[in-house]
Amino acid sequence: MSRAMRAAVMRERTLVVADVPIPEPGPGEVLVRTLACGICGSDLHALKYAPAFVEASRLAGNTRVMDLGKDVVMGHEFCAEIVEHGPETARTPKVGTRVCSRPTLMRATGPQSIGYSNENPGGYGEYMRLSEALLLEVPNGLATDHAALTEPMAVGVHAVAKARLDRDDVPLVIGCGPVGLAVIAALRLAGAGPIVAADFSPRRRELAAGLGADVVVDPADTTPWQSWREAAVWRDLDRAPRLPPWLPGPPRRPAVVFECVGVTGVLDQVMAAAPRGTRIVVVGVCMEADTIHPLIGISKELNLQFVLGYTPEEFAATLRHIADGAIPVASLLTGHVGIDGVAQAFADLASPERHAKILVHPGP
Amino acid sequence: MSRAMRAAVMRERTLVVADVPIPEPGPGEVLVRTLACGICGSDLHALKYAPAFVEASRLAGNTRVMDLGKDVVMGHEFCAEIVEHGPETARTPKVGTRVCSRPTLMRATGPQSIGYSNENPGGYGEYMRLSEALLLEVPNGLATDHAALTEPMAVGVHAVAKARLDRDDVPLVIGCGPVGLAVIAALRLAGAGPIVAADFSPRRRELAAGLGADVVVDPADTTPWQSWREAAVWRDLDRAPRLPPWLPGPPRRPAVVFECVGVTGVLDQVMAAAPRGTRIVVVGVCMEADTIHPLIGISKELNLQFVLGYTPEEFAATLRHIADGAIPVASLLTGHVGIDGVAQAFADLASPERHAKILVHPGP
Repeated sequence: MSRAMRAAVMRERTLVVADVPIPEPGPGEVLVRTLACGICGSDLHALKYAPAFVEASRLAGNTRVMDLGKDVVMGHEFCAEIVEHGPETARTPKVGTRVCSRPTLMRATGPQSIGYSNENPGGYGEYMRLSEALLLEVPNGLATDHAALTEPMAVGVHAVAKARLDRDDVPLVIGCGPVGLAVIAALRLAGAGPIVAADFSPRRRELAAGLGADVVVDPADTTPWQSWREAAVWRDLDRAPRLPPWLPGPPRRPAVVFECVGVTGVLDQVMAAAPRGTRIVVVGVCMEADTIHPLIGISKELNLQFVLGYTPEEFAATLRHIADGAIPVASLLTGHVGIDGVAQAFADLASPERHAKILVHPGP
Repeated sequence: MSRAMRAAVMRERTLVVADVPIPEPGPGEVLVRTLACGICGSDLHALKYAPAFVEASRLAGNTRVMDLGKDVVMGHEFCAEIVEHGPETARTPKVGTRVCSRPTLMRATGPQSIGYSNENPGGYGEYMRLSEALLLEVPNGLATDHAALTEPMAVGVHAVAKARLDRDDVPLVIGCGPVGLAVIAALRLAGAGPIVAADFSPRRRELAAGLGADVVVDPADTTPWQSWREAAVWRDLDRAPRLPPWLPGPPRRPAVVFECVGVTGVLDQVMAAAPRGTRIVVVGVCMEADTIHPLIGISKELNLQFVLGYTPEEFAATLRHIADGAIPVASLLTGHVGIDGVAQAFADLASPERHAKILVHPGP
């Protein structure tokens, strides 16, 4: 096999197509051919805000952060096919098997990132090395492109788990990009509802409704909170708390907001508009310093839960849910490109009307 | 009885001594003579940041916010003596009884603030009106000055309750002013520990140790987190989670931080320094807009719980705990003044070395 492969490479903070070394599988590792890899908003962020991204990774305690002066092959939402087993492997699953994996390489010296790394190329290249112990076989009959959505959908499953929903909670999802859509699918899976979701884009609202949002709102027309207030009125009056007579309006169920926008100012807006006692799950990744008014949080005893990633169990469960249709992903797939098309796809993803998820198919 | 009383009045955003009307007790209300009233940091804030204070109150859904163009008699941490029962009262407790109450007047049209109000003067005046239903008799033998500390100590009891501590959590209290000290006393009462507490002031560190902090830190010497890391090492190794070998240092118990400073920048500092998964309870009231880095919160999956006030049950329990010595308050009392001395006391409280809690004794 040739020792070089084609990849879309982040080099000097732009994306270029280049030949880079095929990674060598170490002990316990396998070499895989990338079949499909989703483009994630975090990759757009990593390109645009590279130094802040690296700094945050360092602050979070990551001791192996990528060096922006060297090549990086991103891509961490993938489905791949086993090509070769490295040393000290059990050789299961066998060559040719389609697999998913968390984008992590387990090494004796600690876990390493796949994708946000100078050593471990991600799915925007033809080949990757993965840890055999982390491989999950793609169930028979599940399309490769759907399996590749395991990673982003697991983010939604994790966010909903961290929200520790009570049966009475009424969720409001702010922002229906891929992260918000993953949250909506996970909320539906968890049996939460009614689910209220807001986005300025008609296309994204349509996707949100398709994935299980009960009420979709255009914030340009009406505030999401007005729709939430209508949806959150207690139907089962026996279960409603008895409110003092001077409080306006009917009693309402508790609010749990999923902030899936991740741009400056949104968190403070949500805090200002939220009812007393609201829990806000921060899923959208805001790369810049942001301003909040703590006094608003204090006045209403708000709770902010920041979330990231997923557990190994959540990741595996998400793949099973996609395979059995409990997390429907087909509508999210709005385009695919080869390695040559990655840079253009990054640009295209800026428009919410055209795309939800673009997959990279690095193969010939 | 004369229909006017002396009070320290907030008028045109300064404190003046003036004669103001004695409030008339309405149905279900009693007239009380203020025996002692603590000066709270929130009152200093209300004077200094009056418009922001009023705006936050409005944002929190309070429909009766004080008009800064009219007189306000602040003071919401009080012990008082019943002088006269208004109409439609049960007349228990009887005249002459010492009582505490939450600083709230229950009216048919909704609760009203006592102290942050144009109509309901607080404890910086000679007389107040209180709701009979909210009165708590001061237990026999409890000093009036100690009973007056029920309100601020209840803030600590509530903050600790909202933290939902697990037995393994190791608390870190940032800032040992009255709020931080109340949190320390409540942590000790809850059996939490070891308790790590940090403040630049030697006097406040001494008070913190006296109230039950196991480790006190001067942030000028060493970071509070270094002391926390030493205190949080698992002693009972059977209960410690098994960590992967590449993680540096011994396993540590979960961190719960109580942010009791309430000035800009502190929250972001705490977020940057906190270990992964830390819960941060925001008790200190920061009146200005503040900057945080959401990416840090996300990277470490931090949780922020903003808290305010206390429940009626927590307030009543706090008075009982003070009476039976479980919440020791004597050391907090560092001075007292008459109505003439309130303005100077506000100025003196700026120095952490001289004072913890100054009581106003409005009587002759």
